[in-house]
Amino acid sequence: MEAIAIVTILALLQFVWISVQVGGMRGKLKIAAPAISGHPEFERMFRVQQNTMEQLVVFIPALWMFGYFVKPLWGAGLGVVFIIGRFIYRAEYLKDPGSRSPGFMITFLPTAVMLIWVLVALVWMQF
Amino acid sequence: MEAIAIVTILALLQFVWISVQVGGMRGKLKIAAPAISGHPEFERMFRVQQNTMEQLVVFIPALWMFGYFVKPLWGAGLGVVFIIGRFIYRAEYLKDPGSRSPGFMITFLPTAVMLIWVLVALVWMQF
Amino acid sequence: MEAIAIVTILALLQFVWISVQVGGMRGKLKIAAPAISGHPEFERMFRVQQNTMEQLVVFIPALWMFGYFVKPLWGAGLGVVFIIGRFIYRAEYLKDPGSRSPGFMITFLPTAVMLIWVLVALVWMQF
Repeated sequence: MEAIAIVTILALLQFVWISVQVGGMRGKLKIAAPAISGHPEFERMFRVQQNTMEQLVVFIPALWMFGYFVKPLWGAGLGVVFIIGRFIYRAEYLKDPGSRSPGFMITFLPTAVMLIWVLVALVWMQF
Repeated sequence: MEAIAIVTILALLQFVWISVQVGGMRGKLKIAAPAISGHPEFERMFRVQQNTMEQLVVFIPALWMFGYFVKPLWGAGLGVVFIIGRFIYRAEYLKDPGSRSPGFMITFLPTAVMLIWVLVALVWMQF
Repeated sequence: MEAIAIVTILALLQFVWISVQVGGMRGKLKIAAPAISGHPEFERMFRVQQNTMEQLVVFIPALWMFGYFVKPLWGAGLGVVFIIGRFIYRAEYLKDPGSRSPGFMITFLPTAVMLIWVLVALVWMQF
């Protein structure tokens, strides 16, 4: 499970990096806490962070269950695709929220594949 | 722990289903990202999603610790109650946010029971 | 891993306690769901809750990986620092959002230390 752990840490560090950028924009654009709106650039960065958190809540359990019940190295590979998808999502969303779908799908598909795969494998094992 | 994993996947798929509905309402009600307000129907769906995420952040660790330290099958049963509570919460919140309490409690109680149970069991084991 | 589990439960109960306070403020300040703004006191409490969730999403995987790959008791100790930092963050943010940085750093540093430590340990182990 070492490969699963390394990919988990990289995905969490990516989220920390995005969160730091949200904080940085508060300073740059003078958006004092607790406000979460007031400038389109801040709102985009904030939504990138929030959406990344929503994805992580599903991705991390999916990744560990896949690593445990199916195959750790394949899980690590799918996890790398997740991280690459997030970089694309972030870059595209900041340029134009309307173009966020491809990066979103590249992030989301690895998680969906792992969830369904583990579910099918576990149900299969009962028979 | 297979039963715990299956319940985890079902709870995560329920969250994905709710998240897809938030995305769908953006299209239907013309609420372009990064906005998260603008129409009461969208705001309700969005709050259902956000509250579900808040619950999952506590529920998933509670479920796995309960499965590991107490009894997996009871954990899976409490997890099914969580999922049913979320369906009720979602349906009631969308009709009228003022009636969201019963669904909320049906979701929250299984998590609270598991957290306290594991805590008492672990502290007990030290003596 | 019992110590890791106990610290996890305490951190989750702290988050539940903060979430209950957000709900309480809805009643006290007449902020009906789905609204998430309308009174500075509510918005501060809500942001404390949201930021705590963002922290937990990184902290809990970091804590368990550190406990598993490095040393559970040190992880539990760093986890206690996280919880203390959150109490400070909450108290300071509610008084004045501008003074939230020290509590934030006391919460965040244990997580960062654990993530980097596990990453270095795992990469080291490959050679």
